[in-house]
Amino acid sequence: MIIDCHGHQTLTPDSHMEFRAAQLARLENRTLPRPVPERASDDEIREIIENNQLKYIKERGGDITIFSPRASGMQHHVGDAETLIDWSHACNDLIHRVTQLFPDNFIGVGMLPQRPDAPLDDAIAELERCVNELDFVGFNVNPDPSGGKWTAPSLTDRYWYPLYEKLVEHEVPAMIHVSSSCHPTIHATGSFYIAADTNAFMQFIQGDLFKDFPDLKLIIPHGGGAVPYHWGRYRGLADMLKQPPLDGHVMQNVYFDTCVYHQPGIDLLFRVIDVENILFGSEMVGAVRGIDPETGHHFDDTKRYIDALDIPAEHKAKVFEGNARRVYPRLDRLLKARGK
Amino acid sequence: MIIDCHGHQTLTPDSHMEFRAAQLARLENRTLPRPVPERASDDEIREIIENNQLKYIKERGGDITIFSPRASGMQHHVGDAETLIDWSHACNDLIHRVTQLFPDNFIGVGMLPQRPDAPLDDAIAELERCVNELDFVGFNVNPDPSGGKWTAPSLTDRYWYPLYEKLVEHEVPAMIHVSSSCHPTIHATGSFYIAADTNAFMQFIQGDLFKDFPDLKLIIPHGGGAVPYHWGRYRGLADMLKQPPLDGHVMQNVYFDTCVYHQPGIDLLFRVIDVENILFGSEMVGAVRGIDPETGHHFDDTKRYIDALDIPAEHKAKVFEGNARRVYPRLDRLLKARGK
Repeated sequence: MIIDCHGHQTLTPDSHMEFRAAQLARLENRTLPRPVPERASDDEIREIIENNQLKYIKERGGDITIFSPRASGMQHHVGDAETLIDWSHACNDLIHRVTQLFPDNFIGVGMLPQRPDAPLDDAIAELERCVNELDFVGFNVNPDPSGGKWTAPSLTDRYWYPLYEKLVEHEVPAMIHVSSSCHPTIHATGSFYIAADTNAFMQFIQGDLFKDFPDLKLIIPHGGGAVPYHWGRYRGLADMLKQPPLDGHVMQNVYFDTCVYHQPGIDLLFRVIDVENILFGSEMVGAVRGIDPETGHHFDDTKRYIDALDIPAEHKAKVFEGNARRVYPRLDRLLKARGK
Repeated sequence: MIIDCHGHQTLTPDSHMEFRAAQLARLENRTLPRPVPERASDDEIREIIENNQLKYIKERGGDITIFSPRASGMQHHVGDAETLIDWSHACNDLIHRVTQLFPDNFIGVGMLPQRPDAPLDDAIAELERCVNELDFVGFNVNPDPSGGKWTAPSLTDRYWYPLYEKLVEHEVPAMIHVSSSCHPTIHATGSFYIAADTNAFMQFIQGDLFKDFPDLKLIIPHGGGAVPYHWGRYRGLADMLKQPPLDGHVMQNVYFDTCVYHQPGIDLLFRVIDVENILFGSEMVGAVRGIDPETGHHFDDTKRYIDALDIPAEHKAKVFEGNARRVYPRLDRLLKARGK
């Protein structure tokens, strides 16, 4: 089985974006009514998925995508608490409908209403709702809900502990994933995402988070940002900061996906990072949608790069399936309940 | 000859840091006198260099380091124009003294007094002084003088053009290098530097800078940030943004150094990036100072990784010497004048 741990709902029914537009309009004019999302038809949702994500899953030989709301659309830095809670509900409910329409191909992961510089109560309430009512198996946690102002405490700070306690309690991992960038000079998918991935890893080096949460599982997407390429820098910085070696200090709890869009990058990832810490991911349909003229295949068809690796079949099976079932225990139980 | 394009004066005479402390004290208390740097003795400067950078150059088989003020110490975001100009003068003058004391081993590169959200006149004046009076061959340009607030226009914006015109006029390249981070949650050498490197590259993709400045030469340090690891992402983003392929659009003018502290990272760099675009660099004595327990050698002894590459000797010669002489024409002329 091929499990893609990193897919976003980048294409949505018109009514969803109309709801968002109404929300943004109300932020400008508070006399407007609080918008309520109009329910898209099953057919509309089905058609979008079948012509995009599901089409590519089938073409590329995949099975299940761990599916979450569009990352750049989370926009935690936009609006007030009510706006953000309503938006999170709408986005997560739409993910849930995809998982109901295509239970064999999509499993839900949620966004959380993390308002910048506010406690995490709203996020925790939505986490509980998504786990208990929508059968979600994980969450995207934004390390910088300010959208590039970096006002949040380090991911190793006690500010985050109430959220981590809930993640551990419900056995749901979190992917550390920022949203859009508030700086016009910082491109979201070309710069901000990669910087935030790298920064999360550096914060983990500096702190001692996993001593307090030995069962917390965190995924750093986009191949771990810059980390595998600069693995020697991070090993050396841990040493300079008198922190333990990375394998015990960080890598018992942190996983990288394979959203790296060329063979040499994937080769490096597998050369440097233990296979137990790598989860198959493609971010499809996402940041990079075109066809690589050098290969004739989509840049984000990352399965091809892994297929081409000269590693044992059981290692590939871990990356495609086994590791995901271990990191997402609720996914594993759902699959087992279906006899898979 | 082995030319290291990336060395900072990370260790300085006491009087230099006392001058800085007096500057910072005056920012708190404007009744204090404007500090004047006390001249360190030749012996003090010589001893620090001989026991650190020069010792390692000799141990590792190097020759010349292109030497600039400590990057994290530039702190463009601290203080007013006068403070920043005085600090730039002091730092650059100290670099000049090293180049006078050790002309065979150090060539000067300057920092510039780039105040956040101010025109570049002070920077240009210092550039002229350094070229005309101190024989400097290049400059460090900070793409974010705000220290992490990212208030500066994109590097492709016309804001920077007066500085680029001077760089081209004097045939001096610039290394794009941020200073310390104002965010406690963003580690300078472990996160901010790498993010800024990557961001510069993404800005070059989005803009059309090198159409206007075909002779401008810019070095992105730390192995190009995350760029080589995510080379497919950047090729794909250029395609999505309807920009030309990277080789013509960016890579006629942009160079990466080899400050990547492990063999797999260096292997990737050389696999992905044309050898014409790679300059030997170590950042020694810099961000990562320890010995890698896996190799028994310093993490930042990057010459060893290049020595170990299975590439033609003439490619190594380009990376160690030829490319630097091409990118830094003033260095080439200085060397030729000395019969080298």
